Amino acid sequence: MRYSKSFSKTSKSAPHDANSVNAGLLTQAGFVDKLGAGIYNFLPFGLRVLQKINQIIREEMNGVGGQEILMPALHPIEVWDKTGRNRTMDEVLYRTKGAGDKDFVLGPSHEETVTPLAAKFINSHKDLPKSVYQIQSKFRDEPRAKSGLLRGREFGMKDMYSFHKDEKDLDEYYEKVKEAYLKVYKRCGLEAYVVEASGGAFSDKFSHEFSIVTPAGEDTIILCRKCSKAQNLEVASGKIHDAGEKEEAELPMEEVEIVRGPSIEENCKAHNVPAHKILKTVVYQFDGGYLGVVIRGDLKINEDKLVRYLGQTVKAASPDELKKLGLVQGFISPVGVSKVKGGLKHAAEVKTKTGGVEIPFIGDHSIKSVKNYVTGANKINTDLVNANLGRDFFIEDFTDLVAVKEGFTCEECGTPLEELTAVEAGNIFKLGSKFAKDFDLKYTDDDGKQKLVVMGCYGIGNTRLVGTIVEAMHDDKGMIWPKAVAPYHVHICRLGPDDDAVKAADKLYEDLVKEGIEVFYDDREESAGVKLNDADLIGIPLRLVVSARNLKDGKVEWKERTDKEAKFVEAEKVVAEVKKWLK
Amino acid sequence: MRYSKSFSKTSKSAPHDANSVNAGLLTQAGFVDKLGAGIYNFLPFGLRVLQKINQIIREEMNGVGGQEILMPALHPIEVWDKTGRNRTMDEVLYRTKGAGDKDFVLGPSHEETVTPLAAKFINSHKDLPKSVYQIQSKFRDEPRAKSGLLRGREFGMKDMYSFHKDEKDLDEYYEKVKEAYLKVYKRCGLEAYVVEASGGAFSDKFSHEFSIVTPAGEDTIILCRKCSKAQNLEVASGKIHDAGEKEEAELPMEEVEIVRGPSIEENCKAHNVPAHKILKTVVYQFDGGYLGVVIRGDLKINEDKLVRYLGQTVKAASPDELKKLGLVQGFISPVGVSKVKGGLKHAAEVKTKTGGVEIPFIGDHSIKSVKNYVTGANKINTDLVNANLGRDFFIEDFTDLVAVKEGFTCEECGTPLEELTAVEAGNIFKLGSKFAKDFDLKYTDDDGKQKLVVMGCYGIGNTRLVGTIVEAMHDDKGMIWPKAVAPYHVHICRLGPDDDAVKAADKLYEDLVKEGIEVFYDDREESAGVKLNDADLIGIPLRLVVSARNLKDGKVEWKERTDKEAKFVEAEKVVAEVKKWLK
Repeated sequence: MRYSKSFSKTSKSAPHDANSVNAGLLTQAGFVDKLGAGIYNFLPFGLRVLQKINQIIREEMNGVGGQEILMPALHPIEVWDKTGRNRTMDEVLYRTKGAGDKDFVLGPSHEETVTPLAAKFINSHKDLPKSVYQIQSKFRDEPRAKSGLLRGREFGMKDMYSFHKDEKDLDEYYEKVKEAYLKVYKRCGLEAYVVEASGGAFSDKFSHEFSIVTPAGEDTIILCRKCSKAQNLEVASGKIHDAGEKEEAELPMEEVEIVRGPSIEENCKAHNVPAHKILKTVVYQFDGGYLGVVIRGDLKINEDKLVRYLGQTVKAASPDELKKLGLVQGFISPVGVSKVKGGLKHAAEVKTKTGGVEIPFIGDHSIKSVKNYVTGANKINTDLVNANLGRDFFIEDFTDLVAVKEGFTCEECGTPLEELTAVEAGNIFKLGSKFAKDFDLKYTDDDGKQKLVVMGCYGIGNTRLVGTIVEAMHDDKGMIWPKAVAPYHVHICRLGPDDDAVKAADKLYEDLVKEGIEVFYDDREESAGVKLNDADLIGIPLRLVVSARNLKDGKVEWKERTDKEAKFVEAEKVVAEVKKWLK
Repeated sequence: MRYSKSFSKTSKSAPHDANSVNAGLLTQAGFVDKLGAGIYNFLPFGLRVLQKINQIIREEMNGVGGQEILMPALHPIEVWDKTGRNRTMDEVLYRTKGAGDKDFVLGPSHEETVTPLAAKFINSHKDLPKSVYQIQSKFRDEPRAKSGLLRGREFGMKDMYSFHKDEKDLDEYYEKVKEAYLKVYKRCGLEAYVVEASGGAFSDKFSHEFSIVTPAGEDTIILCRKCSKAQNLEVASGKIHDAGEKEEAELPMEEVEIVRGPSIEENCKAHNVPAHKILKTVVYQFDGGYLGVVIRGDLKINEDKLVRYLGQTVKAASPDELKKLGLVQGFISPVGVSKVKGGLKHAAEVKTKTGGVEIPFIGDHSIKSVKNYVTGANKINTDLVNANLGRDFFIEDFTDLVAVKEGFTCEECGTPLEELTAVEAGNIFKLGSKFAKDFDLKYTDDDGKQKLVVMGCYGIGNTRLVGTIVEAMHDDKGMIWPKAVAPYHVHICRLGPDDDAVKAADKLYEDLVKEGIEVFYDDREESAGVKLNDADLIGIPLRLVVSARNLKDGKVEWKERTDKEAKFVEAEKVVAEVKKWLK
């Protein structure tokens, strides 16, 4: 491709509304163009990258027996009613109406269409396992489309669905796909971590995400470098540093009047104690009523863990609700309020003789490690000191509720954990038989019995991957494409208008193209500065500069985008050298 | 692909709701599956065909300098407001609403996005010409989705848009694309006619359609085999057989009482004259009022031609309207009603002295060829005989309004024209500067002046092409795929459960696959009848039957789908023969 023939051009600067590095660079270099928030045109350069990524994905999915199909974007509402996701995913669904007043959902995912489709062809255990995938546009009405190609409203995705006779077969296939995914990222030039993540808000199973470490990410992952174990913050577990006070003698509890702010820091200062001595207490509202949660003051509650523990969503109780419960914000404590036994099933408040309430309390394991806590007295400007678990307050249940952070250590090997910001570039789920049940996807087993099919699903956002590669690989001059997904392999910069340079550059371009090498040729009448800057911006892996000055010595300048320094190659040998370099 | 591993299966019969040959065969053979009316899943076999078609299209579009891009399906309403098509295409638009109450149209075509996109990169005459295309899903809410893949609501399309400095440059490029299109159809195994069609309802320019003759088509084309000239019926012109009465003497006009039905046939019978002697008269309502149209009784009016003549839509006047005009249905005539000169601008009815009206009449050229017409007398059960043009009635204007049919002759060479039913498998338009004007797409010419860009657009429905190929190439047993777009090249049928046959078929499959040949291997334990029927249904070009009986003679049965008879090839030479056959 000659620059003079190219549909897109580079711009002098990134668009003002670019909300991320990837949107800025990709737009400035003419790879994509924003049509609306979260909605992008892929221009020839961007589409070339996308198609190369798609090809890599296809090869790896075919490698694990995936068969490619293509499902529509228009989904009749009936299939979404059947799974209940018409309601539960309501917020992100684009909807439309067609002839005959028919309602449709624009597919944000395709479980609703692939499951009834599979039911048409799967009857017997002999029909299993099967795996199908598609590369298709998804539509999700994200409240805030941001980060360029990382979070779009219309975006490309490879989604694969697998069908199995039992969990064991799914488990084996799941591991194969995990390996295939890692190959995809590696071939795209990315280092991906397999991250344990939540299996959905209400599941105690894990799913896995594939995360690429870059500051642009929306995810936090907790990594043990020694074990190579990565966990999404929402499910991460780790060892807390022990406060070393288990053996401390329990002192008599006392009530003290105190004027202080509500934060842990202010609390520490007022009582002159370290943060772990504070008993942090939060009251949540949930379907069963109210629930108190206690954790050591130096730690944070991970609400995702709490949701999974309860099997339902929670909300911190509002000041008004606390008032109604007879609790005082900033001075809440389980002392005198925590219900003695009885279970979470009866978690609605219970009136006490004094007109206050009893609510059940659960605690993070961490609170067992400290004696003589400072805590509120459930009245204004009053704290209790030397409150002790079991003696002064009661905990219904202990569970892991702590938000892991840097400084925790690996549960397996004790290595300090790292906290990293990452982009989720893919995820895989064990769906079990949820969708099979909704669509009566059963098979006859060899024992003659009808059984539900077990499913897995596996997604890679292919357009997001384009943005992720840019986030992971760029410098202050522009993008840095790995060979396998670069829009072109070679970028020829012709410097100067000299006839000799023009002739030589034209010939080099034609010779390389003849060899099947993908070449972008900057044949504009522009200054060396403009051309070299554009080459850095576009980020094609190999830049060849053809200029009258170099030609005098019979040389062409050779600079790889990842190198700092250029070298010179004999003009006559360039084609051969490029072929060698490409291998 | 082994049948036992294949996601889709064949069915014993076509689905009950299949509304066409293509939907029936493609569904029965497991190529596609209907999700909703006009909305299809592409299964692995169907997608393989589609991807091969896409590849052919890509190569030919790249061959005329097209650069591939990918535009979104979600179009902000603002761009559709700008072109007015939000209103004029309202009936077929799917609409949706997103975050922030934003309105979107699901793209039924992409002029609204490609034109502002091009405006970002086209500034100077040096930036022209340019041509971009995409292969993308289109959404059109067709009132009746029918004919399987021939008319869908969500369907695939390759749409290309070209940008030029003037009409001349567009004209040259348009001819190049025409050739490229013919190559696409030829490579898909189809014989396409380039058909002159309307350039839109209100344009006097032509567009071109590419039509494949098959009874499943919705279009009628008029063909001169000698000139190879094809015309869509809506614009077709041709020579009418002359009635040979131009020189006949004009007889005195007489009024006769007669009881007859309103049709031309009943009229002929009542007066005992041939149909061309009847002056056929139709009154239309249009924006300017009412208009009478006369044509020879043996011919039909082509309303598309009338619409283009008037530059607006027309409607036959209702019985009520005719009454109001003082006209009697079945006995209408221009005699005493046709206005003497004055022009169509004043086409609203004008009261006459007798309380009736005058309306302007236009005529098809054909009426000049006959004398002494039979026509109505504008009162019930009364006709006029020997009515003559100029003497008894007046015609404002003559134009070509005749619906051409078989029996007409070619205007160029006099050859009798044929009337054929065809599928429109592509169309190309000269858009001129309509969209450029809407989006201010201008360039600076070498004279320093700002000029509007001139555009062309070029569409091929790629999913429709899948259906068209099936319609054009099938027999009563199933589909007949041409090599270039067949889902697989070779279909191995293994007959019988004998170990030798299994071993030989397995080996043949592996040997062929190793050679890069695309093979579908029916490895089921099914009867020969089932397997051979399925092979015919699926329609892969070459069927190889491996059976114990043939193996005894060291042979494999070789049958091409297009051949009636099978032949036998030495088992050892099959791979080599297949390779030769594929070249």
